[in-house]
Amino acid sequence: MNYAQDLLATDHRHLIHPFLPKNKLERTIFTRGKGCKLWDVQGREYLDGTGGLWLAQIGHGREEIAEAAARQIKQLEYFTCFWDYSHERAIELAEVLAVLAPDELQMSFFTSGGSEGDDAAIKTARFYHTQKGQPSRTWILSRNSAYHGAAYGGGTATGFEAMREGTGPGLPHVAYLTSPNAYRSYYFDGQDPTDFCVAELEKTIASIGAENIAAMIAEPIMGVGGMVIPPADYWARMSAVLKKHGILLIFDEVVTAFGRTGTWFASERFGVTPDIVVTAKGISSGYIPLGAVLMTRDVADIVREGYGIPFGYTYSGHPVACAVALENLRIIKDEDLIARSNKMGAYFAEQFTALRDNPCVGEVRQIGMAIGIELVTDKKSRQPIPEAALTIPDVIREETGVIVRISNYNNICMSPPLTISREEADRAVEAVCGVLKRLKPDGTV
Amino acid sequence: MNYAQDLLATDHRHLIHPFLPKNKLERTIFTRGKGCKLWDVQGREYLDGTGGLWLAQIGHGREEIAEAAARQIKQLEYFTCFWDYSHERAIELAEVLAVLAPDELQMSFFTSGGSEGDDAAIKTARFYHTQKGQPSRTWILSRNSAYHGAAYGGGTATGFEAMREGTGPGLPHVAYLTSPNAYRSYYFDGQDPTDFCVAELEKTIASIGAENIAAMIAEPIMGVGGMVIPPADYWARMSAVLKKHGILLIFDEVVTAFGRTGTWFASERFGVTPDIVVTAKGISSGYIPLGAVLMTRDVADIVREGYGIPFGYTYSGHPVACAVALENLRIIKDEDLIARSNKMGAYFAEQFTALRDNPCVGEVRQIGMAIGIELVTDKKSRQPIPEAALTIPDVIREETGVIVRISNYNNICMSPPLTISREEADRAVEAVCGVLKRLKPDGTV
Repeated sequence: MNYAQDLLATDHRHLIHPFLPKNKLERTIFTRGKGCKLWDVQGREYLDGTGGLWLAQIGHGREEIAEAAARQIKQLEYFTCFWDYSHERAIELAEVLAVLAPDELQMSFFTSGGSEGDDAAIKTARFYHTQKGQPSRTWILSRNSAYHGAAYGGGTATGFEAMREGTGPGLPHVAYLTSPNAYRSYYFDGQDPTDFCVAELEKTIASIGAENIAAMIAEPIMGVGGMVIPPADYWARMSAVLKKHGILLIFDEVVTAFGRTGTWFASERFGVTPDIVVTAKGISSGYIPLGAVLMTRDVADIVREGYGIPFGYTYSGHPVACAVALENLRIIKDEDLIARSNKMGAYFAEQFTALRDNPCVGEVRQIGMAIGIELVTDKKSRQPIPEAALTIPDVIREETGVIVRISNYNNICMSPPLTISREEADRAVEAVCGVLKRLKPDGTV
Repeated sequence: MNYAQDLLATDHRHLIHPFLPKNKLERTIFTRGKGCKLWDVQGREYLDGTGGLWLAQIGHGREEIAEAAARQIKQLEYFTCFWDYSHERAIELAEVLAVLAPDELQMSFFTSGGSEGDDAAIKTARFYHTQKGQPSRTWILSRNSAYHGAAYGGGTATGFEAMREGTGPGLPHVAYLTSPNAYRSYYFDGQDPTDFCVAELEKTIASIGAENIAAMIAEPIMGVGGMVIPPADYWARMSAVLKKHGILLIFDEVVTAFGRTGTWFASERFGVTPDIVVTAKGISSGYIPLGAVLMTRDVADIVREGYGIPFGYTYSGHPVACAVALENLRIIKDEDLIARSNKMGAYFAEQFTALRDNPCVGEVRQIGMAIGIELVTDKKSRQPIPEAALTIPDVIREETGVIVRISNYNNICMSPPLTISREEADRAVEAVCGVLKRLKPDGTV
């Protein structure tokens, strides 16, 4: 048995992959990555059009990060930040985040990723109200097609039933609102999408009772939902309603922050400052597991009263993770990758105008270096293309070596490293357009 | 302002520490670690008697790990293991774990730590029964004084009310059994502790209905609960009852595995093989966030039917984390740290016989390189010493530079790196005994 076959057999015997049926036996086993390129164990070259799972901001295999990690490991690889223990890198990173984040978000609680962060954010919101003498405020408002990680808190707030089925009952007191995907006009009863969503929010608050609601959790721009950019007035109007009722706003910026959507934080685009922001992914470009839950000083001060915040993760403020994040954020800044995200994203969008005449492409959405292509049975009904389309990324990868993903069943999503070159962008666009050209309304190619 | 003052001020302004009240202003800010030693920003030297939070198996600042991390970062820092994507290090680590773990535990699902793992284990257990056509099996049995992380699933199963208060309601369908802390004889109504616990388990199953119970989750030896080693017959008898009723057994070995308690897995000590084992901490000695949920092939095969396991974490099988774990496990093996854990643990226990005559020391528990010292008001009543004792670790640290922790309110816990030397052990023992000598029954020193 050669090396590749041996790896494959061992994978079958011992490794569980999320979302992979047991009887699917093929694997793409990567051995190397550099910039936007990946190579598998057979030596085949790929173009990473997804940045793994919406990350890899600075591209793969950067030596600066290897050095930053090695340096910190030799100096101090880990001690806890529980209680009164602290260390340089966690302090420095908390300060850097406070500078990058919108004004009021001055305090950081560190995690090892988005799932830990979403659960911590929900706990923080509920605890805030408990500390303020309103323990009845326990309900969490979320939305259909939202994604908030895989732990039980955020996992329950996740608006995909298929991800909740068979593992419930989940967290009590979670309600789901309509996704502000304006393209799916049939969601909104013929009304303006924002009017509809604001009215629905008000009705939901009236029905549950504001005095029972802790927070709304939401991605400012929905990633897994298919790169859904809400109408321009959506967040200003939604957040005004929440504020009026004393309901906290949690932004899940795990996908959107650190340049992915063309700004440090997506909230900047909408002129609202949430009370709590969950980050991960781009904070370290995925070089090491890390997340940060940012909160306003008001929220932080209240939850730290008494005995302090009553939960913590072992790796909260991990020194190596923080050192890697500091170096990653330095690179994003020094290489001006925020501007590049906008520039290359716009270039992609321009090239994708070629899809305008494709009968199965309903809409191409782009913001920063994130793209969603909504596939439909026909442009008139705007109905999602059948599930058969789920295999399109496999076809694209097999034929061209370009890696894209499908998300929320009918959206081709792309989120390559922000460092992607024009030539690489051309290759990606050509690959996607070439395969979508053969897409039939039944979802097959 | 000097560097130390500047760091302190920045910490106050921007960093949230778990379990730290806002008005506690002192910090111990570490800047360097080597072996069992740590140094703070003032240059003061400390002896790490806790391994951070029960980890640091191989000691601090190891160059081999720095090199392994740097090498993997340059080669392939990250791509997802979702779907059919894979890579060498995750495959290799899954194989190594299958060799180290008890026979039936052949499959690994990777996480970034124990909290992600506990939630994944609970989901896996429920999903297993759903897939087997018994979706009513949703209840999770846990125990008082259990610790299962800080996400909403495991956090609800955590048997400390103070960690659940103010952030609820938590996960539905969780029941709590009695902790098998035989020393606290008043728990057991004058019965044999195992008899009591088994009868309670049977009564609880009868009351909830076996057909509604998914799993029991438990630390084989309780860490945060105060290093509680159950009676020798406890696990064999408990697991027999569970098996009879088709209830899965999840062992949370986040603290106990990888040599901490003197074996690769604590389950080996009790002659039972759980269906699911949650690991983290020692798997990487904390050099990088990582965890693995091991499961039997039977469980894995059933949850991967259909569309596959319906949840995943972004960093599941992170290449750098897996590379670091491989190197860490190699060191544990090559340096024979399992044997050393038993040897040095026994040495500690021997030295701590000096505490026998201390009127406030009820019991010293030791297993491998993990120690719990139960502090009581008097040896007769065995009542936990008052909360004033919570500050003992601060006193020990200030006076001697030795770091220990207090856990479950009245247990001094120690879990130093397994590499600890005899001289370092002597220093730690002397520090603890010296301060405990002055401990009064009201918990003050």
